[in-house]
Amino acid sequence: MATKQVKNVVKVGIIGLGNMGTGHAGQILNGMIPRMELTAVCDINPDRLKPYPKLKHFESSEKMIRSGVCDAVIIATPHYSHTTIGIDALQNNLHTIVEKPISVTKYDAQKLIDAYKKAKKANPDLQFCAMFNQRTDPYYIKMHDMIRDGVLGRIQRSNWIITNWFRPEAYYRSGGWRATWAGEGGAVLVNQCPHNIDLYQWLCGMPSAVYALGGLGKYHDIETEDECCALFEYADGATGSFITTTGEAPGTNRLEIVGDKGTLIFDCSHGRNNLEFWQNTTPTSEYTKTATSSFGAPETWDDKIPTPGSRGEQHIGIKKNFVAAILDGAPLIAPAEEGIKAVELANAMQLSLMTKQRVELPMKAAEYDKFLKKLIKNSKFVKKTDENAGPTDLAGSWK
Amino acid sequence: MATKQVKNVVKVGIIGLGNMGTGHAGQILNGMIPRMELTAVCDINPDRLKPYPKLKHFESSEKMIRSGVCDAVIIATPHYSHTTIGIDALQNNLHTIVEKPISVTKYDAQKLIDAYKKAKKANPDLQFCAMFNQRTDPYYIKMHDMIRDGVLGRIQRSNWIITNWFRPEAYYRSGGWRATWAGEGGAVLVNQCPHNIDLYQWLCGMPSAVYALGGLGKYHDIETEDECCALFEYADGATGSFITTTGEAPGTNRLEIVGDKGTLIFDCSHGRNNLEFWQNTTPTSEYTKTATSSFGAPETWDDKIPTPGSRGEQHIGIKKNFVAAILDGAPLIAPAEEGIKAVELANAMQLSLMTKQRVELPMKAAEYDKFLKKLIKNSKFVKKTDENAGPTDLAGSWK
Repeated sequence: MATKQVKNVVKVGIIGLGNMGTGHAGQILNGMIPRMELTAVCDINPDRLKPYPKLKHFESSEKMIRSGVCDAVIIATPHYSHTTIGIDALQNNLHTIVEKPISVTKYDAQKLIDAYKKAKKANPDLQFCAMFNQRTDPYYIKMHDMIRDGVLGRIQRSNWIITNWFRPEAYYRSGGWRATWAGEGGAVLVNQCPHNIDLYQWLCGMPSAVYALGGLGKYHDIETEDECCALFEYADGATGSFITTTGEAPGTNRLEIVGDKGTLIFDCSHGRNNLEFWQNTTPTSEYTKTATSSFGAPETWDDKIPTPGSRGEQHIGIKKNFVAAILDGAPLIAPAEEGIKAVELANAMQLSLMTKQRVELPMKAAEYDKFLKKLIKNSKFVKKTDENAGPTDLAGSWK
Repeated sequence: MATKQVKNVVKVGIIGLGNMGTGHAGQILNGMIPRMELTAVCDINPDRLKPYPKLKHFESSEKMIRSGVCDAVIIATPHYSHTTIGIDALQNNLHTIVEKPISVTKYDAQKLIDAYKKAKKANPDLQFCAMFNQRTDPYYIKMHDMIRDGVLGRIQRSNWIITNWFRPEAYYRSGGWRATWAGEGGAVLVNQCPHNIDLYQWLCGMPSAVYALGGLGKYHDIETEDECCALFEYADGATGSFITTTGEAPGTNRLEIVGDKGTLIFDCSHGRNNLEFWQNTTPTSEYTKTATSSFGAPETWDDKIPTPGSRGEQHIGIKKNFVAAILDGAPLIAPAEEGIKAVELANAMQLSLMTKQRVELPMKAAEYDKFLKKLIKNSKFVKKTDENAGPTDLAGSWK
């Protein structure tokens, strides 16, 4: 069975009408994604379908996937089912956007990607995209381009303090699956930070080892991690650090990438929205060797680089790009196959912070899967929920 | 034997005329320290005594200490001899300033402090001070006072990126002892960072465990550590991180301390000299429990706190305070007894980065001493030196 011939409009169904699914539906119904038409919505809770009287309703993703009313699906369900529903959609040749994280574990992510690769063999045009909306942010694109073009020289150190993901208890109570091992498989590292972890590896590459400190339910009545302070080792000797929590306010979002030829700093917290580049007119490594003064330092220029006017199209941009990939053959901004990296890095940090051990990458996927299954099996945590809270305004929910 | 009756002027001798000793001599001879008179200088290299024709010259610290021409000494020799010369001076009842670090190892620092305590029993007025000049910096004093007064509430996270200690090879070549296990016992953690480590523990307390990544001779032709990225665990659950190197330019100096009631950020790098306080009008912990919105956050005020007009008196301030302690009974700003904390924390980071193991504090002092002696014994490193480089302008050598 081949993908349907999609000509001028991509007919899409949304699976999962929680915070994110509701947001996607609103954007499509408001005509913000040209050539994308919302034809169907799916949720196990029929009450959540009611606001969409003109669309096809499904309470089962299997039925929607096989209904013939969609060329594509957006999967915005609790995390574990990203894998199972994703595989089902891809096996049925539907173009697919999966919310982040693409899966909870590296093991699951591999299964999902394998299913895509297999389906793609029969249907080379099949598109599979991850909702890494922050890859559309002109600030990160600028940083990415500068690194790619060698402007920074060899990266020697980086660090990201991304602690402005504050969430109150009300957030965790709004979904029974949230911040449980069985329902979500983690908290800040699998829910908020996939964006930042994806961007970090997109900019600086994958580390070769990780050590993390953290807390399980440190600031909230949850059983999973709401804080993580990690150190990264890279194969070429570079170092990194990644610090996050949902328990801090107002929180910081400051990414610093130090290269031999200069330092790039993006701080979009505490009233700032600054991208700075400090250029060393002589590379540090060269100056180190040739300087004759004991206390000198390379001359540094405060290069004022063009500042993007906005934070980009975000979720709208990813959906537009998905449409362009399907209808025009445009390359995807966030191919879901790359999403396994953020999953693996999150898994490595989770494992390290729970075992207090340094974890080498690539991880053995089956081992972490087993570790997590044990956590689920042994969990005695009773989650307090307030399911009536329902979807909430997401303005400002991404950083 | 009692300390000499010092009446109106403290007669001081400087031991060691390298970078720091030369600096101290200049400040005293230029009359910048009222009631402190430089009477003698001591260096094993007689050429270094020549610029001081009017002072008493010694090539042996033992002789100067017993000469009767000094009420006090400033010890600015290579690090290991801080302990031995310090003990000798204190046992001979001389008021003593010791350059940082007070010793290379916790084991040595304990011996030094024990000698002081013993001497002090006989001479309760004996003053023993560490050259932690940055404790005179009004910015750090302000931060210290705010934390002490509970303005931040409970500290939950802190991090210090202090990477603007850049040093070229020429610096390491300027002294044969520098950056060797036998001569210095380390590099960035025992030479540049004692200031920052002391301030960090002064502000946030001592951690209960440390994990560090780092490099030995990563950016320089040296055998000791020129980079360290460390995570700190505190007994009350707080976390910290400390990132430093002498291999980066221009480098960052940004200290962030996050409390339940607000966040304090001091950034004095990249053209800034900003002390910011972001106050949460409701403590984060309280808001977390009581908020009804899933995506809300405590209201934060950008409190403009008075900015100090300068970075303080630094080395001059410490020497003035030393004089005031001796002549007026003023309390010391930097009692040398507190210097053991920065030594222990540096040792813990060094041990962790070399063993890739988490290190618990308090450390077993004798164990690290043994570890270091083994490094010294096994060292095959041949240091390239250019001793003629001599003392160099120190302007900008402290951050």
